[in-house]
Amino acid sequence: MEKDSAKISMAVIRRLPKYHRYLKDLLDRNITRISSKELSKVIGFTASQIRQDLNNFGGFGQQGYGYNVDALYDEIGKILGLDKTYSTIVIGAGNLGQAIANYTNFEKSGFVPKAMFDMNPKLVGLKIRDIEIHDIDTVEKFIQEHNIDIGIICTPGPQAQSVADRLIKGRIKGIWNFAPIDLTVPDEIVVENVHLSESLFTLSFLLRHNQL
Amino acid sequence: MEKDSAKISMAVIRRLPKYHRYLKDLLDRNITRISSKELSKVIGFTASQIRQDLNNFGGFGQQGYGYNVDALYDEIGKILGLDKTYSTIVIGAGNLGQAIANYTNFEKSGFVPKAMFDMNPKLVGLKIRDIEIHDIDTVEKFIQEHNIDIGIICTPGPQAQSVADRLIKGRIKGIWNFAPIDLTVPDEIVVENVHLSESLFTLSFLLRHNQL
Repeated sequence: MEKDSAKISMAVIRRLPKYHRYLKDLLDRNITRISSKELSKVIGFTASQIRQDLNNFGGFGQQGYGYNVDALYDEIGKILGLDKTYSTIVIGAGNLGQAIANYTNFEKSGFVPKAMFDMNPKLVGLKIRDIEIHDIDTVEKFIQEHNIDIGIICTPGPQAQSVADRLIKGRIKGIWNFAPIDLTVPDEIVVENVHLSESLFTLSFLLRHNQL
Repeated sequence: MEKDSAKISMAVIRRLPKYHRYLKDLLDRNITRISSKELSKVIGFTASQIRQDLNNFGGFGQQGYGYNVDALYDEIGKILGLDKTYSTIVIGAGNLGQAIANYTNFEKSGFVPKAMFDMNPKLVGLKIRDIEIHDIDTVEKFIQEHNIDIGIICTPGPQAQSVADRLIKGRIKGIWNFAPIDLTVPDEIVVENVHLSESLFTLSFLLRHNQL
């Protein structure tokens, strides 16, 4: 039984994939049961934080027993929507776009790349693995015809908003944005950003202040 | 005048690159002066949030004048350590590693890739742009001889910890980690993670709950 998901804070949501990853590690090591105290040692959150986080989704632990690792892993997977598959397209067939399209781990988790798109006519028609690069002008139609869920924007910043506008016109559901800008989208469109420069600059901040 | 940087929360630190980016946009549009209210409209943080954030670093605004965009941009750049250059190496010459090494925007910001490393002998000796791929066994020596600041780990998860151990042995200062694990490192080593799967799973959570 989940609380209204609108009430769950982004901080909690962002911790869920980490639980998922650590529970998978435990399963791989044949650990089937774990207390929130032990889980806390492994994952680095406090036991009370863990109990609080999981209570958002109805809690899973049993007093005196702890957590059933397998059940918790499945349940968090479901909460994350990983019991479904998603059709994706990658826009921008440069180095980063190709790396993302090539990264088979995403496909194993249910995110299946159906096509790439680029504005460079020299790239159109080429294939990365089995994934063909299409002309960006056909992207709206492709999304509709193939019922694409997620558009992954790997273009330079200046192109990203107009690409997003096209994806939205094609009725995309979510955007995974690697371009270094904040997109303007209607409320019903979900956007998740990976701003690599911001992460790198955070590192340089920490380096600078570490050396003081 | 900055406060003790140890007291500045990670949340504030993570907002600084965003200020930096938006201030650059303003400069590009020849806007030289801005009130915290106007800046708030552009960047999407509240005006009081902005004043509070910048007060951590001595504040920059003047009552009734607002912020001098140029000076604030420079100052935040310095706080982020972007007035220096950093030597970097990329470990793992697969698609993602190549994309990162190829991304010239990082170099423009002062992060200069000096070499790549891989364990695959077929890749050793090849070049990406002018960046040569070396044997991973030589990484400790390379770091010391070239005074490398940042190691960028783009290996699969299972190799990442042993790579990190080598970087630390070579006296690296910071690690930008793209591998899907949490590294164990001594306190004096700065680590910044980019966990792509966690970002993608956050998107699928938001998609799933958006559709309810």
